[in-house]
Amino acid sequence: MTLFGFKEAEVAELVRAVSIGTLDRDAIENAFARAMWTGIAEPGDRVAGQLVDQLGPARALAALVERRPAGDIASSELSVADAQQALDRWMPRLQPATMLQWLRQGARYGARLVTPVDDSWPSGFADLRHHGPIALWTRGRPETLAALSNSIALVGARAATGYGEHVAMEASAGLVDRGFAIVSGAAYGIDGMAHRAALASRGHTIAFLAGGVDRFYPSGHDALLNRIVENGLVASELPCGSAPTRWRFLQRNRLIAAASLATVVLEAGWRSGSLNTAHHANDAGRPVGAVPGPVTSAASAGCHKLIRDGVAELVTTTAEMAELVGVIEAGEPESRTRENTRVLDAVSARVPRSPDDIAARAGLTVAETQSELARLEVEGVVRGSERGWTKRGTPREP
Amino acid sequence: MTLFGFKEAEVAELVRAVSIGTLDRDAIENAFARAMWTGIAEPGDRVAGQLVDQLGPARALAALVERRPAGDIASSELSVADAQQALDRWMPRLQPATMLQWLRQGARYGARLVTPVDDSWPSGFADLRHHGPIALWTRGRPETLAALSNSIALVGARAATGYGEHVAMEASAGLVDRGFAIVSGAAYGIDGMAHRAALASRGHTIAFLAGGVDRFYPSGHDALLNRIVENGLVASELPCGSAPTRWRFLQRNRLIAAASLATVVLEAGWRSGSLNTAHHANDAGRPVGAVPGPVTSAASAGCHKLIRDGVAELVTTTAEMAELVGVIEAGEPESRTRENTRVLDAVSARVPRSPDDIAARAGLTVAETQSELARLEVEGVVRGSERGWTKRGTPREP
Repeated sequence: MTLFGFKEAEVAELVRAVSIGTLDRDAIENAFARAMWTGIAEPGDRVAGQLVDQLGPARALAALVERRPAGDIASSELSVADAQQALDRWMPRLQPATMLQWLRQGARYGARLVTPVDDSWPSGFADLRHHGPIALWTRGRPETLAALSNSIALVGARAATGYGEHVAMEASAGLVDRGFAIVSGAAYGIDGMAHRAALASRGHTIAFLAGGVDRFYPSGHDALLNRIVENGLVASELPCGSAPTRWRFLQRNRLIAAASLATVVLEAGWRSGSLNTAHHANDAGRPVGAVPGPVTSAASAGCHKLIRDGVAELVTTTAEMAELVGVIEAGEPESRTRENTRVLDAVSARVPRSPDDIAARAGLTVAETQSELARLEVEGVVRGSERGWTKRGTPREP
Repeated sequence: MTLFGFKEAEVAELVRAVSIGTLDRDAIENAFARAMWTGIAEPGDRVAGQLVDQLGPARALAALVERRPAGDIASSELSVADAQQALDRWMPRLQPATMLQWLRQGARYGARLVTPVDDSWPSGFADLRHHGPIALWTRGRPETLAALSNSIALVGARAATGYGEHVAMEASAGLVDRGFAIVSGAAYGIDGMAHRAALASRGHTIAFLAGGVDRFYPSGHDALLNRIVENGLVASELPCGSAPTRWRFLQRNRLIAAASLATVVLEAGWRSGSLNTAHHANDAGRPVGAVPGPVTSAASAGCHKLIRDGVAELVTTTAEMAELVGVIEAGEPESRTRENTRVLDAVSARVPRSPDDIAARAGLTVAETQSELARLEVEGVVRGSERGWTKRGTPREP
């Protein structure tokens, strides 16, 4: 028996090795087809997404394996020319040895394949439509995926400053305290700090990678990523063995944005990749926050641009970050009235004054003045005696 | 002959001493009445403003001097009760000796009284309506008043940080270079730095005070204020001899806001008086900018609040401050296409690759790949040889 030209027993064994639970023949076929599609199409390939959604992953893969003409996969939503172009770019990747290697390498690294039929499939990906991931390769605690339903992405510059790293640490720890999972990209600088602080606070943290989950990038974050595998989750839409590329970094950013409820950019240079994540989040209808910094710091220029362009809201505290997703905390009170201020101005701290004198100085009627004096006395700001009214404390410019 | 109960000759001499140009009897009467009103009513007294606008300053003053009943000054816009209350608060200030002293002290300090009939009356005050100043007491170069028509207010915390003072200095010098006059409040910290940098750049600068122009506040800014008198202008809506009070600081802020085309807050604590200036500017329909800073700095908390509340626009450069009043400068360019990025990812810096190989790696058709390679070659990013294509430079995460 064969499946897409492969020995069925071999395929089934490999698929089971990277899956959770028991799978029947259909489920194996679909999981295998999705796994293959993660290697055949580049992330964000809309035609691949459309085809898989329309025909199902297995029939879509069969069309490729059987070398069907473009006319067979064309539809009302896909012209023959676009179908042909898509076939032309997918065909070169249809190499049986490489394809099985995607699964073998995944099994070797204990990776798990998660697909849209799984309960733990992140619901946020639905907003990406055909442009979403066909499947997700993960390493770590499978239950961490569920935490994405209450997660905030913290992203930012690799070339972070001490200030940026400090704010990232505070934000991550503060959001974990409020029950949020922390999503990021495991890059140097802000991303790394966000993951680290989440781990230190025993929170959930998920790192989305631009290459396979078997090759940690950047290599300097090997230890960090291993800790994330142990205590959280590392995920990618590319099969094991895939190298990160510029394109894949940009597409990885859309997963970070879509998987979380909101994205907060902590520091970003003028051309930082985190601006791309912010735009993805904005496009997917997710709230975006940006933390300001000194205007003299190039590492904050991108954050300021996002705020100026109306892409991001300015956020300064974890409470304000939580507010992005609708969590409102306690507020701020009171201010003085005009009469209140003017009467207080007219009362001296040293010389006791009569209500008439105070009224003249304040430019208010005596009646108004007396009622304000009574109020201020209750507040403990002025004190009355037989000699007149005096103020407690010293005046200063408001 | 008497004028409002004063000897006319004495009044005329005093008014001439604080006025520019020759004045006829009517002009003297009106100028004198306005001068008196600056001392009788507290800044921002809407009833006084309304009455002066309705009856003219002289008839409005006459009503007070003649002890007319509230019913006489009431109108469709002013109830008898409100009129009575206003009379009750104005009467105690109707002290002949004090009133002449306002003028004498002004003359002694070389102060000039500017009123709405003067050409140099700041046009921006019109937006304050009855709530605007009845007259302005000034010291300095009279021509500086005209510069208000192209001015920006730079305000901020007295407890400024080194960062805030640096930004204030850059902003002030940069705006002077662009032809703007700098308006501020002469306070310690940001205000002082804004004035200083404007003077150093030989620009126009105007300081609005909360007390008389004869008593400089804060006293530590005596030297600075004397330099502003020499090279710019110091102005107040209160007569000489008036002490600054909390109320007057708050009302002074509305003059700063209304006199300038836009207000920029450079640093402000959570309860800084500059927030009040920003709100006055916003209420008067003036654009407001706020400079962000570290979220760890209390001195920037007010700026961030203004931006979050939609009162101020985030501004990071002098160009962006100038943009607040519609001055647009040069912009930013370009970005890579998706194909461009993917082809570039697939080209190695070391190993020459064929277009077929690159197409498979990029997930693009060979035709697309070749056209992108040609484009990238023109840009000087890749180079083609008989052995294949290689990249110049090293790849990094975007």
